[in-house]
Amino acid sequence: MASIEDLQRKVSELEAKLAAVQGNAGPVRQKIDVMSSEVVDSNPYSRLMALKRMGIVDNYEKIRELSVAVVGVGGVGSVTAEMLTRCGIGKLILYDYDKVELANMNRLFFQPHQAGLSKVDAAAATLQSINPDVTIEAHNYNITTMDNFQKFCDSISKGSLSGGPVDLVLSCVDNFEARMAINTACNELNQRWFESGVSENAVSGHIQFIVPGETACFACAPPLVVASKIDEKTLKREGVCAASLPTTMGIVAGFLVQNTLKFLLGFGNVSHYLGYSALTDFFPTMGLKPNPQCEDSYCRTRQTEVKARPAIVEVATEVTEDEKPIHEENQWGISLVDENSPEEETPNLNLVDGVQVAYSIPVDNSTPESSTGGAVAASELSLEELMQQMKSM
Amino acid sequence: MASIEDLQRKVSELEAKLAAVQGNAGPVRQKIDVMSSEVVDSNPYSRLMALKRMGIVDNYEKIRELSVAVVGVGGVGSVTAEMLTRCGIGKLILYDYDKVELANMNRLFFQPHQAGLSKVDAAAATLQSINPDVTIEAHNYNITTMDNFQKFCDSISKGSLSGGPVDLVLSCVDNFEARMAINTACNELNQRWFESGVSENAVSGHIQFIVPGETACFACAPPLVVASKIDEKTLKREGVCAASLPTTMGIVAGFLVQNTLKFLLGFGNVSHYLGYSALTDFFPTMGLKPNPQCEDSYCRTRQTEVKARPAIVEVATEVTEDEKPIHEENQWGISLVDENSPEEETPNLNLVDGVQVAYSIPVDNSTPESSTGGAVAASELSLEELMQQMKSM
Repeated sequence: MASIEDLQRKVSELEAKLAAVQGNAGPVRQKIDVMSSEVVDSNPYSRLMALKRMGIVDNYEKIRELSVAVVGVGGVGSVTAEMLTRCGIGKLILYDYDKVELANMNRLFFQPHQAGLSKVDAAAATLQSINPDVTIEAHNYNITTMDNFQKFCDSISKGSLSGGPVDLVLSCVDNFEARMAINTACNELNQRWFESGVSENAVSGHIQFIVPGETACFACAPPLVVASKIDEKTLKREGVCAASLPTTMGIVAGFLVQNTLKFLLGFGNVSHYLGYSALTDFFPTMGLKPNPQCEDSYCRTRQTEVKARPAIVEVATEVTEDEKPIHEENQWGISLVDENSPEEETPNLNLVDGVQVAYSIPVDNSTPESSTGGAVAASELSLEELMQQMKSM
Repeated sequence: MASIEDLQRKVSELEAKLAAVQGNAGPVRQKIDVMSSEVVDSNPYSRLMALKRMGIVDNYEKIRELSVAVVGVGGVGSVTAEMLTRCGIGKLILYDYDKVELANMNRLFFQPHQAGLSKVDAAAATLQSINPDVTIEAHNYNITTMDNFQKFCDSISKGSLSGGPVDLVLSCVDNFEARMAINTACNELNQRWFESGVSENAVSGHIQFIVPGETACFACAPPLVVASKIDEKTLKREGVCAASLPTTMGIVAGFLVQNTLKFLLGFGNVSHYLGYSALTDFFPTMGLKPNPQCEDSYCRTRQTEVKARPAIVEVATEVTEDEKPIHEENQWGISLVDENSPEEETPNLNLVDGVQVAYSIPVDNSTPESSTGGAVAASELSLEELMQQMKSM
């Protein structure tokens, strides 16, 4: 016969199983009006508010007023959304048009019982039960079609809790077209965003912070890859099932959200580019200036606006030579390593050791075309060809 | 106290509820006998097996034979266990004695509906539903008590799928006593393990690979912290609620499991020490040699055994001077940066910039004591004092 201890153990196991299976069906926690620092087991914000007491963040509660758009709710995007939800972000806007499959189970977040559900709906339900204080908006469509692109632009330009633009867009998509769509939208809307990516062989990844006109946009410079002693060409074959790991994707999501928090809450230094090579635990960082010949006309417009900004040095009464406030409006502490003049014809990538461009766009200045887009650098590769090359990224 | 009848009724109620809810929730996935590379949406292993086709891992299926013990199922340990589960590890052994609280909701993994459940039971249930192919064993006790310590040692020394020692122990605990207990057990059992930790201010963390006799154990050298321009003394105050972030903890878990995979499946280079400073995105790596005067007698025994190993140089017919096979049994590619002779009295930490020891253990050679433990370096700090200092780590 079973002992009391055995039975108590059985009860505890069954309760845990039931809770796991019930998922969203069980009682979730109530909404909380004001973030509290009170150190009690029932306060889901005590360990976040402790960042104030630790001297890391001045005003953690500010996070409740902020809105972030997460485009792509796959291996990186779902974990990104979960981290922001647990941090108590004010509003999350999710975009995806894919369904959960068992083939996604080698990444964090989705569970087998969600197979067949739309990723945004499944994610929104889980996230809302994790933190009912977050406003979650789910968009179940492909942002790259003409109609949806306009809906996407509208939703990020009016998506904040007060009806204004979101505070940040995070790209967690897995293909070139979607990245280009986000880039186009953010240049036009003058919207700051982070690009992220994981290589097809699952052992490298990166995040990149893009401030229109101030840093290289996605069209200014070819995407970077962290070299891992593997011929990148072997990674771009068509129809090949990409490898993925929950580790690499979780780390890239962690870097993305950590830098998002640093940017939104104003602590530490935001990395402009942070790479990760899993095989050697190598983490290159760098800065990238925008390309004056960028094919995106809004990027060039933003560059002109940035150049026209009145520098603080003009109104300051005393500035020492050592303290040139070149990026005086650069509140997030990025330092651009490229010291070349902005009049240069091609972007100087200044790549650190171990980082390569994923592909090159040769610039042909010999036969300037009378294109409608202004000074667009002619590319030897058509957009179609580039897309072909990038489709598996 | 509940009677046997009450408990039996409770068990049957819970079983009925579970059956009812499981029915509604849709079938969780069935067990899979053999890992397949087939690229279909229903295959949860396709993206992992693709690591073979990508040339990263030779024999991914081997993971199903391997066993890992995860000690501490909190912010780092729960994500560590989830990553290993999704990677298809053969067996996971979990240890914790804590309950899930709403105050844990600012980290990944646990959800509000699990509040009140034991962490190991709640984790085991969720993990099992994510991947029914993994054998999961849950130990709901504190490993630092005398009785439990012996149970802990037995479970890791006989915990593999074939009844032998586990392949790796991962320390995801949050206090000094538990780390010392794991260190003591692993030195005695000659068991390789990884230590991990996150600072109280939530913005730095580290992992450290410990191979008894070959690398510094937890007692050889004081724990390292990644300096973040914050006075570490402010972080050790008693009774202060530690800050934590899902980002930092997810990243540390990612580093831990990524290096675990590299070690278990034999790809890339396993980092001996990898630090993370979130404020500056700084990632120090280094190697640490064992301390010949380590207070742990089993550590000194393992050091003696390592020194006594026949070097390949003695049997090889031709070895060039440039290729000293000092660590010929070092299969995981660690390079120790410390080039000092092993006869040195104190461990040479060779710390890289930005890394400090969390506290120092002064070595006093002037008054050798007739202690029972052999050549134990006398410490000016008592173990009690050290524990006091470390209790909040």
